[in-house]
Amino acid sequence: MNVNELKKKALEIHKEYQGKISVQSKIKINRDNLRLLYTPGVAWPCLEINKNKDLVYDYCSTGNMIAIVTDGSAVLGLGNIGSFAALPVMEGKAILFKEFGNVDAFPICLATQDTEEIIKIVKNISPSFGGINLEDISSPRCFEIERRLIEELDIPVFHDDQHGTAIVVLAGLINALKLSNRKTDQAKVIVNGAGAAGIAITKFLVDYGIEDVILCDTQGAIYQGRNQRMNSEKEKIALLTNKKQIKGPLEEVIKDRNVFLGVSVANVLTKEMIQKMEDDPIIFAMANPTPEIMPEEAKKVGARLLATGRSDYPNQINNVLAFPGVMRGALEVRASRITEGMKYAAAFALANLIPENDLSEDKFIPSVDNLQVGKVVAGAVAKAAVENKVAGIKGVEAKF
Amino acid sequence: MNVNELKKKALEIHKEYQGKISVQSKIKINRDNLRLLYTPGVAWPCLEINKNKDLVYDYCSTGNMIAIVTDGSAVLGLGNIGSFAALPVMEGKAILFKEFGNVDAFPICLATQDTEEIIKIVKNISPSFGGINLEDISSPRCFEIERRLIEELDIPVFHDDQHGTAIVVLAGLINALKLSNRKTDQAKVIVNGAGAAGIAITKFLVDYGIEDVILCDTQGAIYQGRNQRMNSEKEKIALLTNKKQIKGPLEEVIKDRNVFLGVSVANVLTKEMIQKMEDDPIIFAMANPTPEIMPEEAKKVGARLLATGRSDYPNQINNVLAFPGVMRGALEVRASRITEGMKYAAAFALANLIPENDLSEDKFIPSVDNLQVGKVVAGAVAKAAVENKVAGIKGVEAKF
Repeated sequence: MNVNELKKKALEIHKEYQGKISVQSKIKINRDNLRLLYTPGVAWPCLEINKNKDLVYDYCSTGNMIAIVTDGSAVLGLGNIGSFAALPVMEGKAILFKEFGNVDAFPICLATQDTEEIIKIVKNISPSFGGINLEDISSPRCFEIERRLIEELDIPVFHDDQHGTAIVVLAGLINALKLSNRKTDQAKVIVNGAGAAGIAITKFLVDYGIEDVILCDTQGAIYQGRNQRMNSEKEKIALLTNKKQIKGPLEEVIKDRNVFLGVSVANVLTKEMIQKMEDDPIIFAMANPTPEIMPEEAKKVGARLLATGRSDYPNQINNVLAFPGVMRGALEVRASRITEGMKYAAAFALANLIPENDLSEDKFIPSVDNLQVGKVVAGAVAKAAVENKVAGIKGVEAKF
Repeated sequence: MNVNELKKKALEIHKEYQGKISVQSKIKINRDNLRLLYTPGVAWPCLEINKNKDLVYDYCSTGNMIAIVTDGSAVLGLGNIGSFAALPVMEGKAILFKEFGNVDAFPICLATQDTEEIIKIVKNISPSFGGINLEDISSPRCFEIERRLIEELDIPVFHDDQHGTAIVVLAGLINALKLSNRKTDQAKVIVNGAGAAGIAITKFLVDYGIEDVILCDTQGAIYQGRNQRMNSEKEKIALLTNKKQIKGPLEEVIKDRNVFLGVSVANVLTKEMIQKMEDDPIIFAMANPTPEIMPEEAKKVGARLLATGRSDYPNQINNVLAFPGVMRGALEVRASRITEGMKYAAAFALANLIPENDLSEDKFIPSVDNLQVGKVVAGAVAKAAVENKVAGIKGVEAKF
């Protein structure tokens, strides 16, 4: 399908259905049950919850209901398009949550981009929800918003652009390192792009135990003491990474590295840069829709361990491998938060979905067509929640 | 079913289904359409909406999606039970909107009861919605919240506790006046209860043309210059009603009146009070679950034109006769607000649903089992929206 066809068909299907989501009753209403579901019977669940707030999970849809919250400030690769224009993406996310995780998800598009205001609103609407998925909120505000909501709410809060991406990248990287016969401590990583995803991937890899990571932005390598275009998150990253304080643009600092993880823009990685890397490099070119380098080009200079964000090439880095299962698992055990342990459990479960003897350069990341993905990730996440003592339901230990 | 059985069954059915609502995809997802519904195709509806905000109605679920917003401050007859305990009622309302109006409705339970905060939150989450139904927010804050949201938003905002009740009451009163051979200007009305519903009913009747209305609260008749337990809304009502400035408790001011509309509490109307009223009085005893007087008791002193809020007596005053159709009609023509004309159109449509020669003391308010109700009300409301020039879709004039 070419771009014009894609545009035409995408607009058509959205218009035909007038959007993608609806709210449905779980129960067919009749005159008999209406007395139980609404007045006068509904007063009883109200009174029980009034006595014990936790019973909202017994009598309401809360335990399977999340909000997808955005302010429209960093939508896909489209940038700050605002709350109305963000809605098609949020509705899309909602149907993915449903299809891949059986999670009920409702889009909340906010007409404000003020950090404090967003935090306050999400807290104030939280009684309707069992979890919060933050989406497409620009960096660095997204970090503060997520951090504060995790602190101040006792339901799981997950910023998918950060952690969903980081989970899938780590899963792919674990398998790619195996295929290139490298150990974790032999990885020498460049992360290119210091937005929400780049920052989160970098932190996640460092915490995982990959010591040699350099994060680059449009100014080149980020290092302690750099003055230009820094922010509080980049300052923190500078303390954790690039221990040798290597300076310079991507084309220089890429020399002798063996992993390139691009969450930046089209065509910034050239064949010449790949030739400067260690032999048999690992290249995840995740810019969408046009990657940092097209796989065909990378292959011309010998790269074979390639992943992109696209469905028309092998090894698609697609957040849908992570977020539905992560939230499903957290909701299953009524986790009060999503711990680092739960995220690593998701990454390891994803990596292990491909048996070692099945791993190949054409298949080191599970396919989104694998219907087991959501369930396997959910199970691993729920188990980790129990181990991390954040599960809110008593007695689930036996199950996970 | 006795109270214990009702409690048991109501709790059971809520627990069995773990709440009453779910979010569903309108479209069955497959690998082919996923490219249209999510990345990369979804970018196109986003870009179109970014150019023209109104296209959100073409490409998103907005045009049929409303929020049911509460702060849990005045839930059913249960009072200020808070945002979590209010959720079963809001989910119940959501399934009624769906069943009777085919409106997608999502409950937003707010953790704040601050008027300004509520206004700000509703405005800020409004990009996800095509309409706002305010629910169970205590008086007098509900008036300010509704007024401001109507002013500041360009989607319909409807406080059902006020206007839903007022619409059904007027419909019933029109038919009861016919049955008692009284003209509109012969009605001498007592409204008992000065909360959201009582205030709204009073205003609605006065604007309709019933000049002689007295609103009572626990202190008795409200009149200009009364000092005790007044608020800004009661002050306004005092200017519109009780022109003779009658003072005193309900049992005194009820003398020689011919209509009693109770939105107060159980058993406040006695047989003795009814005997003081004009012959063949009209009694709407709408307190729930126990009315101001039980119909059996009222009949003992000759009253025959009786309505209650209960489904086990004839003439149930049930808001579900109004709110689904009102919102359906407003959404159909994308009304920017719900005008007085639209509310009166709803009341007249409801009253006229029973042909004049079918009217009887056992049937002067349509039954909720009448499946025509939602459609008939919606049609009348949509038509009035077009006449009132608040319809947002061009070319709908021909249809309505």
